[in-house]
Amino acid sequence: MGKKISHKLKIIPLGGLNEIGKNMTAFEYNNEILIIDCGLSFPSEEMLGIDVVIQDITYLKKNEEKVKGIVFTHGHEDHIGSVPYFLKEINVPLYGTKLTLGLINVKIKDKKNLGKVEMIVKEPGQAFKVGCFGVEFIRVSHSIPDAVSVVLTTPFGKIVYTGDFKIDYTPIDGQAIDLGRFAELGNEGVTLLMAESTNVEREGYTMSESTVGITFDNIFRASTTRIIVASFASNIHRVQQIVNAAQMNDRKVCFSGRSMVNVSEVAKELGYLKINEDTLIDIKDLDRYPDNEIVLVTTGTQGEPMAALSRMAKGEHRNVQIREGDLVIFSSSPIPGNEKSIKNVINLLYQKGAEVIYEALADVHVSGHACKEELKLIHALVKPKYFIPIHGEYSHLKTHSELAHQMGIPNENIFVLSNGNTLEITQNGAKMGKNVPSGKLLIDGLGIGDVGNIVLRDRKILSEDGLMVVVVSVNKSTNTIVSGPDIISRGFVYVRESEELMLGAKKVVKESLTNCLDNNIKDWASLKSAIRNSLREFLYRTTKRSPMILPVIMEV
Amino acid sequence: MGKKISHKLKIIPLGGLNEIGKNMTAFEYNNEILIIDCGLSFPSEEMLGIDVVIQDITYLKKNEEKVKGIVFTHGHEDHIGSVPYFLKEINVPLYGTKLTLGLINVKIKDKKNLGKVEMIVKEPGQAFKVGCFGVEFIRVSHSIPDAVSVVLTTPFGKIVYTGDFKIDYTPIDGQAIDLGRFAELGNEGVTLLMAESTNVEREGYTMSESTVGITFDNIFRASTTRIIVASFASNIHRVQQIVNAAQMNDRKVCFSGRSMVNVSEVAKELGYLKINEDTLIDIKDLDRYPDNEIVLVTTGTQGEPMAALSRMAKGEHRNVQIREGDLVIFSSSPIPGNEKSIKNVINLLYQKGAEVIYEALADVHVSGHACKEELKLIHALVKPKYFIPIHGEYSHLKTHSELAHQMGIPNENIFVLSNGNTLEITQNGAKMGKNVPSGKLLIDGLGIGDVGNIVLRDRKILSEDGLMVVVVSVNKSTNTIVSGPDIISRGFVYVRESEELMLGAKKVVKESLTNCLDNNIKDWASLKSAIRNSLREFLYRTTKRSPMILPVIMEV
Repeated sequence: MGKKISHKLKIIPLGGLNEIGKNMTAFEYNNEILIIDCGLSFPSEEMLGIDVVIQDITYLKKNEEKVKGIVFTHGHEDHIGSVPYFLKEINVPLYGTKLTLGLINVKIKDKKNLGKVEMIVKEPGQAFKVGCFGVEFIRVSHSIPDAVSVVLTTPFGKIVYTGDFKIDYTPIDGQAIDLGRFAELGNEGVTLLMAESTNVEREGYTMSESTVGITFDNIFRASTTRIIVASFASNIHRVQQIVNAAQMNDRKVCFSGRSMVNVSEVAKELGYLKINEDTLIDIKDLDRYPDNEIVLVTTGTQGEPMAALSRMAKGEHRNVQIREGDLVIFSSSPIPGNEKSIKNVINLLYQKGAEVIYEALADVHVSGHACKEELKLIHALVKPKYFIPIHGEYSHLKTHSELAHQMGIPNENIFVLSNGNTLEITQNGAKMGKNVPSGKLLIDGLGIGDVGNIVLRDRKILSEDGLMVVVVSVNKSTNTIVSGPDIISRGFVYVRESEELMLGAKKVVKESLTNCLDNNIKDWASLKSAIRNSLREFLYRTTKRSPMILPVIMEV
Repeated sequence: MGKKISHKLKIIPLGGLNEIGKNMTAFEYNNEILIIDCGLSFPSEEMLGIDVVIQDITYLKKNEEKVKGIVFTHGHEDHIGSVPYFLKEINVPLYGTKLTLGLINVKIKDKKNLGKVEMIVKEPGQAFKVGCFGVEFIRVSHSIPDAVSVVLTTPFGKIVYTGDFKIDYTPIDGQAIDLGRFAELGNEGVTLLMAESTNVEREGYTMSESTVGITFDNIFRASTTRIIVASFASNIHRVQQIVNAAQMNDRKVCFSGRSMVNVSEVAKELGYLKINEDTLIDIKDLDRYPDNEIVLVTTGTQGEPMAALSRMAKGEHRNVQIREGDLVIFSSSPIPGNEKSIKNVINLLYQKGAEVIYEALADVHVSGHACKEELKLIHALVKPKYFIPIHGEYSHLKTHSELAHQMGIPNENIFVLSNGNTLEITQNGAKMGKNVPSGKLLIDGLGIGDVGNIVLRDRKILSEDGLMVVVVSVNKSTNTIVSGPDIISRGFVYVRESEELMLGAKKVVKESLTNCLDNNIKDWASLKSAIRNSLREFLYRTTKRSPMILPVIMEV
C-alpha cells in the first residue's frame, strides 16, 4: 500500500474513558483497524438543547481505508447508538450476536442515505477474522440478552475486552457466563485485559437477575389491583420475568411506550422473549379487563418527561389514567442525575392514589454490572500481562487500576488512559504513543457538531435572563433618530407588568444614541456598543439581571 | 375592631407541604395571626434563571394588621431565608433563639429599606406571648445549634410544632433534646402535633453527631498530608468537631468560602464555635505551614459550581491549588438532584491526584433529621388528638400519616394538607376550611414574582434552540421589500459555518413576504406570521430544530 509498516499494535480508545457512555475502541495493526462498539452518550446538564453526544472519529475518517469492521459486545445505546452517524461517514461490516444486530437494524432500517449495510451474525465460540485480527465472542451475563466479551488474537498475543458484564450463575435464559473460556485463555496467556469499571466502587457481588422474578411473583400474587411495572425496554430478561409472573397469576400483559413496544417486538421475533399469544393485549383494550387481570409494562423508569409512565402520572396519557389503588413498580435504579425527576413522578403517582414500590422498598431490581468481587474473579482467571480499565469516570478507572494492582499486576503494566490516547504494544513491551483527535460531537436535531461552545454559551445566557432586541432607525446625514428605539423582550420579564421598566430602558438607549450622534459618532459598531453598554448597565442596576442585548440599527 | 369574631383556630400552611423548603405556617385566632418560620426554597430544574423561591403571602398582606410576629425554629435557609422579602411587605417582631436571630441579622443588617426590625431572643423553657398565643421553645437536636420545637397555647389547647429535629442523646454541645418536656406536654394533653417528615421513609434511628467526630479523629491521626473538609457552614457542631480533631492532631484550621467564613464568624462571636486563637489561620498564610499541619474547612459539599471546593477542583481558586496527595473529605450527603455535580467535582479532584473520602466510604456524615423510630418516639410521648405531617413531599407526608395511624391516631384526625389549605379547630372538632392563596414566587435578581410561566416558557425555548431575529424594511405604498431580510441568530447554529443555511432562510422569508405583498396583504400581523411560518417550516425541515423567531418589520 506504499505506507510505512509500523509493526506496532495500537489500542486507541475514542470513547468511554472518563465518562459513562459513547463507548468505542479502535485496534490498529499495520494497515488494518478493527473497532469494538460504537455507542452514544446522553447530554450533561450544561449541554442545553442537545439530543445526544457521539465520538469524534476524525482519526478513523483519515484512515478510512484501513477500517475493516465494527464488532459489538451488546445492544445497549451506549454501545450501538452512534452506528447511524458512523455509517454515514464510513460504511464497514458490522459483527455481533443476533439480538445486537437486530437492535442495530431497528436503528438503521429507515435510513436511506446509509446505503447497503453488511451485518454478520456470529455466535459465542465461533472464530472469525476481521482483517488480520482473529475474533471470538465469549458469552457473558448483562442486563440485555446476547451480551458477549470479545477476544482478539493479534501478532502480540490475545486481548480480552469484557464489554459490560456481570457474573450470573442462574440467568433467566440458562446461558451463563462462560467462565471456563476465560480460564482457558488465562492459562494459555493473555497479553491485555480491558475490563469494564461501572460497579468497581461497589463491594461484593451483584445479585442474580432471577432473584427479581421471585419478588415479582410474590408481589403479583398478593395484589388485587392493576399493576404497572416500569422497566428498561432492552432489559428483555426483566420483561420476560414480568411476563412470567403475569402468566402465573392469570394476568394479561400490555406494553406501553414506544421503545417498549419496538424492542419487545424485535425480541419476540428473534426468539428472546417468550409470551403466550393470548397473554398480550393492546393498550386500547385495557378497559375490557378487570384491574386485577392486568399488568402494564411501560417505559419511564428515569422520570423522563415524555415517557409513558410520566405522562400517566401527569394525567396526560391517552389510554391510561392512574386510579386509586393502582400498584406501580419501578423495576430500576436511578441513573445519577435523574433522582429528582423520578421522585417527582413518584409523588404525582402517590397523589393520584397509587401505591408505589421502588428499589429502596423491595428487591425489584438488580444491576447488570460486575461488582468488586466479580471483577476480581475475572482478573484471577484471565491473569493478563497488561491491564486497561474501561467504561467509567476517572474515579472508576482509578479504583479499578488499584484493584488490578491488588490482583498482582505491576503498576507499570496498568494504563489508565483517556479518550484519544494511544497505547502501543510491540515486541519490547507496551508504551504510550501519540494522541489522536478525540472529543464530543453534540447532536441537535439533524445537526452534527454544529453546536459548539459559542452556541451553548448563548443558550445559557438566554436560558437565565432572556433577551432584548432594540430596534432603532437613524438618519446618518442629519445625525438624528428617525424612529424608535423600540424594544422586544423575551424570557426577561412579563412585559405587560413592567411598562415602567421598558420606558426607562427606551429612555436610556435614546440618551446614549443621541449622545453619540451629537458627537458625530455614527459607525455601526460604536452605536451598537453604546446601546449594549447603556442598556446592560441600566438593566443590571434596576433588576440585577443581564439579558442578551441585540441592537438592530436601520439607516434611512 | 368591628370585624366578625370567628371563635375558630385556623392553621394555614403557606409553604413546606408537598415540597422541600420554603417552610411557613400561619396560626390565626380571631384577630391575631402568629407565623412559624419564613424560609425559602431553591429553584427546580425547569425554573430557568431563577435564584430562589419564596411563599405567596397574599393572605397575610390582606390581613396585615392581624400579624403579630414570626417565631423561628432554627436558622437554616429553608426556615429563615425569605425573611428579608417578608419584612419588606410586613414588618413584625421576630422571635427566636440567639443563634437563629444572629443568622437572620446577617441577612438583613445591610438592607436599608427594611426599617427597624425588632428581634427578641428567647431561651428554651421561657414562656412568652405573641398576641393571644402562649409560646414556648423546647430544645431539640438538629444539624445546626440552637434548634427548637415550638409549643403554642391556644384557646383550644396546645399545639406542638416540631420544626426540624433528630433525637441525639450525645450531642456535641451537651444540650440534648428535652424529651421530658415533650412527655410532660403529652401527659397534660396536646390538641395537635405538627411533625417534620424529611426522613420518615428511613428505617431506624439517625446516628449521633458525635460519631462523626471519632471518624474525623481517626482519619486526621492517620494522615500525613493536607486535609480539606467540605461541610455545610451552618452545621456548626460539625465544624466544631473538625476544629477539635484538628487541634488534637496539631493542625491549623483555615476557613474558605464566603458562607463558611461568615457563619463561623457569627458562631464564634455568639459563643457557639470554640476555637483556639492560634489554631485559626488566614487562607493567604496557608503556604507558610507544612501540609500535614493544615485542615482547610470549605463550602461546596453539593458540587455548586461557584463554591470554594468546586473552584479548587477546577484549578480556579485564587489561594488553593489541589496537589497530589491532598485528602479531601465530603462531610455531607448529596441533596437529591446534586449527585451528578458532586461526582464531577470528585472526578476532578481524583484527576489532580487527591484522595477523596465521601459518605459511601466512611462515617463522615450523619443526617440532622429524625428517622422512623425517632418519629414514633415523639408520637408516643406527645400523644396528640390531631396530627398534621409537615416538611416534605407528598410521599413523605403520606408515609408519615400512615406512621401516625400506626401510633394510634384515628384516620379522621390525621390531616395531609397542601399549602393554602386551612384546618379549622373549634369546640366541635377539626375540619377543613376555605383555601387561601398560596404558591411559589420566583425571584430573579431584584424581581419578585415578575418571572411567570410565559417568561419561563420563552427561556426554555431559547435554551433549547436559540433564536432568530429577522429584520426587513418594506414600502407599503409600493408593496416592495426595501432592504433585508437580514437575519441575526443566537444559540441556534454557529453562523460562520452555516452560510448556506442562512442564505436558504433569507430566500424563504423573502419569498413568503413577496407573496404577501404581491397579494396586497400588508398588515403587520399577517406579514409577521408569514415570516414566522415559512421560516419555522424551513428550519424544522432542514435542521429538526425550532428556534424562537422574532420578525422585525420596518416601514419606510
